[in-house]
Amino acid sequence: MTSIKSPGEKNLMLFSGRAHPELAEEIARHVGVSLTPTKLIDFANGEIYARYLESVRGCDAFVIQSHTVPINQWIMEQLIMVDALKRASAKRITVVMPFYGYARQDKKGRGREPITARLIADMFKTAGADRLMSIDLHTSQIQGFFDGPVDHLFAMPVLENYLKNKLDLDNTTIVSPDTGRVRLSERWADTLGTPLAFIHKRRDLDVANQVKVSEVVGRVRGRTCVLIDDMIDTAGTICKAADALYEQGATNVIVAATHAVFSDPAVDRLKNSRISEVIVTNTLPLSQAARFDKLTVLSIAPLIARAITEVFKDGSVTSLFEGDT
Amino acid sequence: MTSIKSPGEKNLMLFSGRAHPELAEEIARHVGVSLTPTKLIDFANGEIYARYLESVRGCDAFVIQSHTVPINQWIMEQLIMVDALKRASAKRITVVMPFYGYARQDKKGRGREPITARLIADMFKTAGADRLMSIDLHTSQIQGFFDGPVDHLFAMPVLENYLKNKLDLDNTTIVSPDTGRVRLSERWADTLGTPLAFIHKRRDLDVANQVKVSEVVGRVRGRTCVLIDDMIDTAGTICKAADALYEQGATNVIVAATHAVFSDPAVDRLKNSRISEVIVTNTLPLSQAARFDKLTVLSIAPLIARAITEVFKDGSVTSLFEGDT
Amino acid sequence: MTSIKSPGEKNLMLFSGRAHPELAEEIARHVGVSLTPTKLIDFANGEIYARYLESVRGCDAFVIQSHTVPINQWIMEQLIMVDALKRASAKRITVVMPFYGYARQDKKGRGREPITARLIADMFKTAGADRLMSIDLHTSQIQGFFDGPVDHLFAMPVLENYLKNKLDLDNTTIVSPDTGRVRLSERWADTLGTPLAFIHKRRDLDVANQVKVSEVVGRVRGRTCVLIDDMIDTAGTICKAADALYEQGATNVIVAATHAVFSDPAVDRLKNSRISEVIVTNTLPLSQAARFDKLTVLSIAPLIARAITEVFKDGSVTSLFEGDT
Amino acid sequence: MTSIKSPGEKNLMLFSGRAHPELAEEIARHVGVSLTPTKLIDFANGEIYARYLESVRGCDAFVIQSHTVPINQWIMEQLIMVDALKRASAKRITVVMPFYGYARQDKKGRGREPITARLIADMFKTAGADRLMSIDLHTSQIQGFFDGPVDHLFAMPVLENYLKNKLDLDNTTIVSPDTGRVRLSERWADTLGTPLAFIHKRRDLDVANQVKVSEVVGRVRGRTCVLIDDMIDTAGTICKAADALYEQGATNVIVAATHAVFSDPAVDRLKNSRISEVIVTNTLPLSQAARFDKLTVLSIAPLIARAITEVFKDGSVTSLFEGDT
Amino acid sequence: MTSIKSPGEKNLMLFSGRAHPELAEEIARHVGVSLTPTKLIDFANGEIYARYLESVRGCDAFVIQSHTVPINQWIMEQLIMVDALKRASAKRITVVMPFYGYARQDKKGRGREPITARLIADMFKTAGADRLMSIDLHTSQIQGFFDGPVDHLFAMPVLENYLKNKLDLDNTTIVSPDTGRVRLSERWADTLGTPLAFIHKRRDLDVANQVKVSEVVGRVRGRTCVLIDDMIDTAGTICKAADALYEQGATNVIVAATHAVFSDPAVDRLKNSRISEVIVTNTLPLSQAARFDKLTVLSIAPLIARAITEVFKDGSVTSLFEGDT
Amino acid sequence: MTSIKSPGEKNLMLFSGRAHPELAEEIARHVGVSLTPTKLIDFANGEIYARYLESVRGCDAFVIQSHTVPINQWIMEQLIMVDALKRASAKRITVVMPFYGYARQDKKGRGREPITARLIADMFKTAGADRLMSIDLHTSQIQGFFDGPVDHLFAMPVLENYLKNKLDLDNTTIVSPDTGRVRLSERWADTLGTPLAFIHKRRDLDVANQVKVSEVVGRVRGRTCVLIDDMIDTAGTICKAADALYEQGATNVIVAATHAVFSDPAVDRLKNSRISEVIVTNTLPLSQAARFDKLTVLSIAPLIARAITEVFKDGSVTSLFEGDT
Repeated sequence: MTSIKSPGEKNLMLFSGRAHPELAEEIARHVGVSLTPTKLIDFANGEIYARYLESVRGCDAFVIQSHTVPINQWIMEQLIMVDALKRASAKRITVVMPFYGYARQDKKGRGREPITARLIADMFKTAGADRLMSIDLHTSQIQGFFDGPVDHLFAMPVLENYLKNKLDLDNTTIVSPDTGRVRLSERWADTLGTPLAFIHKRRDLDVANQVKVSEVVGRVRGRTCVLIDDMIDTAGTICKAADALYEQGATNVIVAATHAVFSDPAVDRLKNSRISEVIVTNTLPLSQAARFDKLTVLSIAPLIARAITEVFKDGSVTSLFEGDT
Repeated sequence: MTSIKSPGEKNLMLFSGRAHPELAEEIARHVGVSLTPTKLIDFANGEIYARYLESVRGCDAFVIQSHTVPINQWIMEQLIMVDALKRASAKRITVVMPFYGYARQDKKGRGREPITARLIADMFKTAGADRLMSIDLHTSQIQGFFDGPVDHLFAMPVLENYLKNKLDLDNTTIVSPDTGRVRLSERWADTLGTPLAFIHKRRDLDVANQVKVSEVVGRVRGRTCVLIDDMIDTAGTICKAADALYEQGATNVIVAATHAVFSDPAVDRLKNSRISEVIVTNTLPLSQAARFDKLTVLSIAPLIARAITEVFKDGSVTSLFEGDT
Repeated sequence: MTSIKSPGEKNLMLFSGRAHPELAEEIARHVGVSLTPTKLIDFANGEIYARYLESVRGCDAFVIQSHTVPINQWIMEQLIMVDALKRASAKRITVVMPFYGYARQDKKGRGREPITARLIADMFKTAGADRLMSIDLHTSQIQGFFDGPVDHLFAMPVLENYLKNKLDLDNTTIVSPDTGRVRLSERWADTLGTPLAFIHKRRDLDVANQVKVSEVVGRVRGRTCVLIDDMIDTAGTICKAADALYEQGATNVIVAATHAVFSDPAVDRLKNSRISEVIVTNTLPLSQAARFDKLTVLSIAPLIARAITEVFKDGSVTSLFEGDT
Repeated sequence: MTSIKSPGEKNLMLFSGRAHPELAEEIARHVGVSLTPTKLIDFANGEIYARYLESVRGCDAFVIQSHTVPINQWIMEQLIMVDALKRASAKRITVVMPFYGYARQDKKGRGREPITARLIADMFKTAGADRLMSIDLHTSQIQGFFDGPVDHLFAMPVLENYLKNKLDLDNTTIVSPDTGRVRLSERWADTLGTPLAFIHKRRDLDVANQVKVSEVVGRVRGRTCVLIDDMIDTAGTICKAADALYEQGATNVIVAATHAVFSDPAVDRLKNSRISEVIVTNTLPLSQAARFDKLTVLSIAPLIARAITEVFKDGSVTSLFEGDT
Repeated sequence: MTSIKSPGEKNLMLFSGRAHPELAEEIARHVGVSLTPTKLIDFANGEIYARYLESVRGCDAFVIQSHTVPINQWIMEQLIMVDALKRASAKRITVVMPFYGYARQDKKGRGREPITARLIADMFKTAGADRLMSIDLHTSQIQGFFDGPVDHLFAMPVLENYLKNKLDLDNTTIVSPDTGRVRLSERWADTLGTPLAFIHKRRDLDVANQVKVSEVVGRVRGRTCVLIDDMIDTAGTICKAADALYEQGATNVIVAATHAVFSDPAVDRLKNSRISEVIVTNTLPLSQAARFDKLTVLSIAPLIARAITEVFKDGSVTSLFEGDT
Repeated sequence: MTSIKSPGEKNLMLFSGRAHPELAEEIARHVGVSLTPTKLIDFANGEIYARYLESVRGCDAFVIQSHTVPINQWIMEQLIMVDALKRASAKRITVVMPFYGYARQDKKGRGREPITARLIADMFKTAGADRLMSIDLHTSQIQGFFDGPVDHLFAMPVLENYLKNKLDLDNTTIVSPDTGRVRLSERWADTLGTPLAFIHKRRDLDVANQVKVSEVVGRVRGRTCVLIDDMIDTAGTICKAADALYEQGATNVIVAATHAVFSDPAVDRLKNSRISEVIVTNTLPLSQAARFDKLTVLSIAPLIARAITEVFKDGSVTSLFEGDT
């Protein structure tokens, strides 16, 4: 007998870094599995140490990490976890990054800049990642930065589901806070059947020193405006956009965004703004201090869990969005 | 004596495929060099044969090809030319693609699509390209698809220079023909100090069957409108946009775009439209049949020639646009 | 529970480009599966768009394309199909190219030529191909151009089977039309037990201007001659060879070749020649206009179908030819 | 039906080069499988020819070769065997090198040296190896030279098991023959609960010409000393170490090492030394001439067989050493 | 004229991250060049932004960063700087990391650990680094983790130069604080002509719970002991070693180490210890709070500057240490 | 000042392994440089150690090794030399292999064979080779196995030059000893203006057991026959061919081949054959025992030296053969 045969088997395992364990645990519950016990500690000089406490040989690994502050540390931790999985003979490694760090540095806006979003993709490939999964990439082109399959999930259904019941759509306008998000806003307007507007920062030619004024382009007077963005970082743009809308006669401004980056002073700005509601998902962790009355946080965990399950079963992730086979 | 020393030397050589020899020759004149004699023929079954008729050993090679119809043939020809340069010991190979073919397939818009723009970048890398040079990429993120330096040139100064003298800027609005080009139009509006508008195709809720109507968002009545795009392919979008602008009371509509793809029936549509002038560059070849009265073609050759010269001399390409060192 | 187990499964799927759908469908029938529905269109400027209409996640994909005219387009289409499969999480991708395009550019015959056959192999690797399958490669060394398994199938049994019954082997000579195919012809002569001859083009020293004359080396007078080649392109060589054989007293000339490239003016030349029968396979599509009375087309589909099935089942492809396990 | 499904299957196959067939056969017996019949011959000019006599398509291959003299030939043979497996569609290839050749050239000790141990790892990767398995690497860092999983097995339990019953541990000292093996010796001392010593070669300042003297650092007088090393090559160091220990009053010196390289004149030196017993494993072949009375050879085959079986079954190799899951 | 020739030129440029600008500036002074002006900022969510303020096209770049706390941030900054240099057409990129972060994770000590030191090397390669330069790598094998030239510099001459004048070598013993550094200590002992000792932590068999005791192996009574290590992290090992030496009758204990990592509570431990002097270099930055009376910091800048200059001039770096050409 | 400029410089250095130092030295004399002093030794267990005794930083390195017996050792030595050059910062590395080892294993002749010639090319790439140089590759396709420039030199002019004066071309036939070398022989016949013949081994149908008989195809009676091959290994084929030619009435048989592999029993066979002269080059070393009266050895060193010089100076290697620029 020159060979021993045994039936093949697939073996799903979930792993989580330390950036946002609550989300990972919620995903795990929806998938119906526990997170694999993992030792993750910082040595005295800040170097990260990782070790899996169970055998991962041959598993179909999904490594979850949210790229929140301190962002470089959590990215490095996820890279190290991938390296350890590769060297421990995991069969396939899918990196799950609900928020893709450095996604905004996706081009050379000026000469002699890096394209860090591509570097991130390449480093995960180098570490051993076979696949990526992420939600609402800052630009869809980032999918092309990774040399392999990328499952790009959309939070829009989650957010829209929540909003649809709250709005009088006949009296609503979808607004892009700047010219870079108009396409995204159009997709919302298309689904909801509402008009579209955007904010355009232009030089005020009447004033010296090139002061910029926020000009609202589109119909907003007397209407509920929903500002759409993929992420809220310091909330400066979004709050100025809300101000401009109220100035132009909007009756109400609501904000919907997938990623609550909420860097300082985002929380203060949003709290103190005239925005009536801010709706985000939990792709990134939010401390108690970052939660305020008019903030609504929807969970992204069921969506990620379904996608992981489909990937594991070789089912269709596309059908999560498009309704086809 | 265990070594022979000799001074280093750099040696610029230009090469051109057969897609748009006029542009390559114009570039060569501006650089001050002849195109390297190259044998390029199609075998009976369509396979391309390439051979350089002079030694290219150690040269700093720039290979120029416009990705026009038949686009797959010209891309393949350029790939083959790069392979031949690599195997003939060229020292450095820069692929010059004034129009980057397949740039619009830069993401998976739906499941199970390719990302052909990334594939193109990877194939040139595989063939032996060290660097890319292109003009007005459809999205700037494509720079990140190539694993190496990309010189991304902008035709805007060329086009703007021409337009500035023709327009009464106080009475001009820059218009994006759809929601995907608003950011690009904003850059124009910013430089010229004009208002900004865009066309939004939305479902007409009063009509069955989801007919889409082109809605103009922004101030255009009584004004000269300049529609901005990176390329004109079949001219359907741009002509509908012009119609919508005239309907909303625009007094005049001008179109400015970098790449004149002009696929059928672009020329007929533009000729028969109410557009008063169409301004493009010669990144792609235009047959006599594709030239019509109100078409203005500006040459991109001086810009490319300056960039090639700077790259060869290790000068700054950034300074071509930004005015710094 | 830290893992979910499920049994492994293999899932064969067939895909076809647009170059030769009849062959792909015939292969599919023999395999016992339908071709996966695929959207393949040309955009107005010639760019190819591909999308699979069913989930391909986890499948064992075989992508069939014949490299016929317009050859660069069909190669690019196959590359794009492979990229789309990779990004859609196919588990393993086998590129089936019954005729390997650019196979004749497999070396630098002169300085500063490309080695396009290697470039083709590298580009498929870059796009995501794990394996190649092809028939009667122009030179066997091309197997070594691909960094991975190549299933190299032989059409000789198919052709020989047909011929054996037609020939009086005692009165037959196998003839190579030039000096590059003598080894291939020898394999035929060896199997059939016939003598071997070849045509040698040499300078006629009695005539100026280096006119070449076709010299027959070997015994052909009064015999049936079977000219063997891997492909017939413009049929110039093969028709001149037939003439030379008749001049040397051959009673009958038959031609057998695997790949009917049939570039202009092959069909006219063959029709008008004194060749009594031309036997080819359908690795490449033949229009009705390319079919003529003395042409016999044998199907290669059963052979490819058996090879695909063996590859899928981890059976032995070698045994298709060698009769061992 | 657009797909054919069949259950996945794993298929273990063992392969052996010609360096140490006895070990490979012993491993095969423990695994419960026969070695796959393989043709391996040397052509007249020394080139190696390899061919597998059974189909290996889809198998989980383990290729066993001991890097003994002529070491470059056996390494090349193993590389060639891996290439043949890759091209014959083996699914996964694990290179089993009980002794890792060139492991001592694992750094640049001086300028302009190679790092051949890294080169070896890279060449196996290039040939197609997915994984490595080895025993008692000269330095553990060599694991990091391979870009993939390395199963690093330890012979210490095998050696210790044998020794424990022979020694009066209260009167035993573990000794490192030089300063580079102190850490390894410490691991032994730690497990056995004995003191630790080492030999330090230092310049004798009283003598000219920088003669070096072997100085024993640690308590050895009146004790049984066990000299520990990963390999015995020419046995020069180990025999001088034994002499120094006897000089310092050791009552008995035993040597334990994993790899019996035994290059000339190792056997004579050991035979003629005052060392009472030499204990090694059979990672490398030993001719009859290399066997002498006080030599004990323990078999490493059961350990390798268990590791291969665990790797095949996706079990835990770590648990072989650490007793956890 | 088909080519333009110009003489080749080399162009050294120095770049520094934000981890240890004083060292970079000191190096620059010794090289005789200014650091290239570089914009390096943290965005609100911690993402790093980099841009060079001068053209770097064609330069021979040396990018200096010390891997100190927050170590992951500084490593990422250096990676991003390399990416930006690559994309801005730097000709050659040498990464200068005076202290190589994660060097201690250079092997899998246990199953399912990463080998982060290899990952670091691979990520710099991926980002675009051509070469590495570092000082006193934790293990020399790390040189082999990088696929390219590594200039491995030694601080020993700097430290020894300082110490030689202070010590009565006849009454000095070099001591390794654990069994892993004995080889390094031996190199010191060899150069200085002193005896060698080491500390061995062993289980105290008389006490329950496997308490470990520090055992001094070697001659230290009545002597000055110099403890040698490549780095001092929390100083726990080194302080316990000093205590053990004093217990065994050492008259004086001095510590010499290259890298002053000085994580908490290193400074307190060293201050409060009986160690009489601690000698380190400035490969890592030391705050004022980390400086104490008996600490001596020697500058490594002249050594790095000489190495950079030699690399630029294609001189010999080996000769810095070995005195040959 | 943010940069230091210095003129670029090229620096040719020659290196030789131990396989055929006479050839390397002869090449060096023709180039006008000494071989770089290099330490190359075998350790006791056969591992090779390499170290360059002069700085090689920044040099344009040419590493010469003949792949003669023991062939695996010399290939490994050359690989190790390349690795050491890469790690010592050589600027460009050209591997000079006058005879390319394993060139005959350039395809899978049967299933489950390796393609070792490709493996060799890949291993040199992995080790760090930028370019290859070789003479009369067994098949030209091997050029395509290396991913980079290959300078493929031809010995034909050297051999032909010698022969032309000796032959009465009107009475000479060029003969291929088997069907695989007919193309090569044709090139000779074409240059010399002679007829062409070949030997064909076919089954003798009159005899059982498939005995093969050597059949001469072509005109040889009463003529001088020159048998052409790229290499003579055991000389079996060539001697049988000579016998067949004499049987068919040839008056004289001469043999010309580039590579004198001369494995046992080649020398005896040739000596004892009726062949009147054997002409080879010194691409491989020949011991005194391998030299016999009718053997003529021509030096290939001038050709290689010219090629190296042209490569170094970025001159044209093509022009060595084709007479163009």
